Amino acid sequence: MMIRILTLLLAATLAGTNCFSQATQPAVAEDFKPSTLNQPGQEYPQVNSQGYARFRIKAPKADSVRVSLGLGGRGGTRLTKGDDGFWTGTTEGPLDEGFHYYHLTVDGGTFNDPGALNYYGSVRWESGIEIPAHDQDFYALKDVPHGNVQQILFPSKSTSTSRRAFVYTPPGYEKEKSKKYPVLYLQHGWGEDETAWSNQGHANLIMDNLLADGKIKPFIIVMTYGMTNEVKWGRMKDFSIVPFQTVLVDELIPYVDANFRTVANKDNRAMAGLSMGGMETHTITLNKPDVFGAYALLSGGVYNPEELKDKSKAKLIFLSCGSKENPDRVKKAAADLKAAGYNAVSFVSEKTAHEFLTWRRSLHELAPLLFK
Amino acid sequence: MMIRILTLLLAATLAGTNCFSQATQPAVAEDFKPSTLNQPGQEYPQVNSQGYARFRIKAPKADSVRVSLGLGGRGGTRLTKGDDGFWTGTTEGPLDEGFHYYHLTVDGGTFNDPGALNYYGSVRWESGIEIPAHDQDFYALKDVPHGNVQQILFPSKSTSTSRRAFVYTPPGYEKEKSKKYPVLYLQHGWGEDETAWSNQGHANLIMDNLLADGKIKPFIIVMTYGMTNEVKWGRMKDFSIVPFQTVLVDELIPYVDANFRTVANKDNRAMAGLSMGGMETHTITLNKPDVFGAYALLSGGVYNPEELKDKSKAKLIFLSCGSKENPDRVKKAAADLKAAGYNAVSFVSEKTAHEFLTWRRSLHELAPLLFK
Repeated sequence: MMIRILTLLLAATLAGTNCFSQATQPAVAEDFKPSTLNQPGQEYPQVNSQGYARFRIKAPKADSVRVSLGLGGRGGTRLTKGDDGFWTGTTEGPLDEGFHYYHLTVDGGTFNDPGALNYYGSVRWESGIEIPAHDQDFYALKDVPHGNVQQILFPSKSTSTSRRAFVYTPPGYEKEKSKKYPVLYLQHGWGEDETAWSNQGHANLIMDNLLADGKIKPFIIVMTYGMTNEVKWGRMKDFSIVPFQTVLVDELIPYVDANFRTVANKDNRAMAGLSMGGMETHTITLNKPDVFGAYALLSGGVYNPEELKDKSKAKLIFLSCGSKENPDRVKKAAADLKAAGYNAVSFVSEKTAHEFLTWRRSLHELAPLLFK
Repeated sequence: MMIRILTLLLAATLAGTNCFSQATQPAVAEDFKPSTLNQPGQEYPQVNSQGYARFRIKAPKADSVRVSLGLGGRGGTRLTKGDDGFWTGTTEGPLDEGFHYYHLTVDGGTFNDPGALNYYGSVRWESGIEIPAHDQDFYALKDVPHGNVQQILFPSKSTSTSRRAFVYTPPGYEKEKSKKYPVLYLQHGWGEDETAWSNQGHANLIMDNLLADGKIKPFIIVMTYGMTNEVKWGRMKDFSIVPFQTVLVDELIPYVDANFRTVANKDNRAMAGLSMGGMETHTITLNKPDVFGAYALLSGGVYNPEELKDKSKAKLIFLSCGSKENPDRVKKAAADLKAAGYNAVSFVSEKTAHEFLTWRRSLHELAPLLFK
């Protein structure tokens, strides 16, 4: 079962590396602007109104500079050198809306774009670029009350370390000193870490905006590192859930319940994860059916009624993916679960693949359904 | 006055770029280990027991790879290419203990070391390497109660944005719901940002360890971006303190006092800064003598008795720098202030220059003196 899910995740991930839109290519509009994820003062990389990305890299003595973004199988986007020592190039087509990881290959070595901010993905800090999405308002930084994202260091006997987690507390958490909150445990994907959901995921801004619009009740989000049992991509069958499950259920949850004002029961505790984090959510919620009251798999597989029966019932099962992944599988699984009497919901992010816009949108859809 | 201080800061910074120890060079010990600041799973860069650094970069088709760390004027450390396509090299001498920023020059372009974590300095995300210090225990991650570092987004009318700050709250802050805490406002240097003190500075770990040892009473630390008035290094005379002073005094302090449990008065509010942040601290504390009760300049200039007279008196003036900067100036300034009746303290970090070990040690010395 675990291997089957992993195979599906792998297929989805590889499908996601070709992140071009499939539309006919229009003429390239010359309205390029710096990506919103550039380092301060950096003009490149740039993005135009159609979603093309343009790169400009100084490497006057290099023989070749390539950008990993673009037509995967054909080696990404090759840059060409100008007389000024800068290598420039534009993707062959528009990229999908949203966030993309990328890196450069300079004379055969892997480096980041010095113009872009870095995001942890693929087990390395990669460059990031943002193609403005038509619905980007829901994760924009607005003049609304903002919650905080706290780095906590919690004791972990099972791993003999102080482990890091990030905790989103909603606006008002500090002032309303007697109020208690439900908690969502939210996991990143393979090759990512506990920084992903607040950096590239904008989980805090999604929550702030939903709260400002009165669309959800406030809750806490906890994000920690889920690959406690380190495995390489090709060795995923060696993955054991036990080390992470121990950290999460026996160490982190008690720490959060002791140090934050939580409603410490099953109905007010949910677990969600993207991709590999969805696989972990699937396994842990089935192993520990009395701990979590709602489950969400974001591009991270599905539940079937058989594996859920005879267990303490979840109040909500949320399944999502991008339309460029396997949306029919997610929709069918939710329908099967509903037919079997579960409160299952599916969501498909239009025109996105196995990337973060799918998961930002998924969180935006999931949050209003939680803790009702 | 401001220009004089800036000239001194500039001189100190340039002096700091030669970060070699001055001792006679011993034979290189072959006990290299991965730097503690490497990305997960990365074997290089490495550091040996003497403080030499060794680099290994894959770039099979490059013509030259250089590391900026090393003998500044002579172009850093040049790597040489092996048959396996990897460029390797070791610094000519041991580096100073502590944290160093660096980057690569690959065929004339500036890139980061893909093996190392990134830290914001020099107005870019640079690679970082750590030479273990003999006194590193005071900023080590230990099995003690840990405070949290919270990212807050506070409204700023003067800049029409939600601005970011990081707030360290000491262990127990969440549980002791009625306790109120003093606050230290702590600024980064030129080219750095509000991430510096908790990332490369380990301010949270320094506090956690001091608290666990019973050496200080708990207080809050607030760190925000201080270069509100963006200026380039060569144009520092154009710097105006007004935009940042407005954000700090009129916007951030009221927000922190409203949203955290602070003792909101002068005697329980201090300001400190390193380098350019020291210059800002100097100017703002003189402009707003009723706001802060203690001042600290870390490699960031000095106060003289004349500029302080006729103003509300500080309870503490702390001046520090590295022994490779201008320690006599700091010591003389503190002596002059004491002679004039001020509670002035100087601290010199042994065998360090204008770099973060100087400032970690300075915070470690400063914290026990604050809020008495």
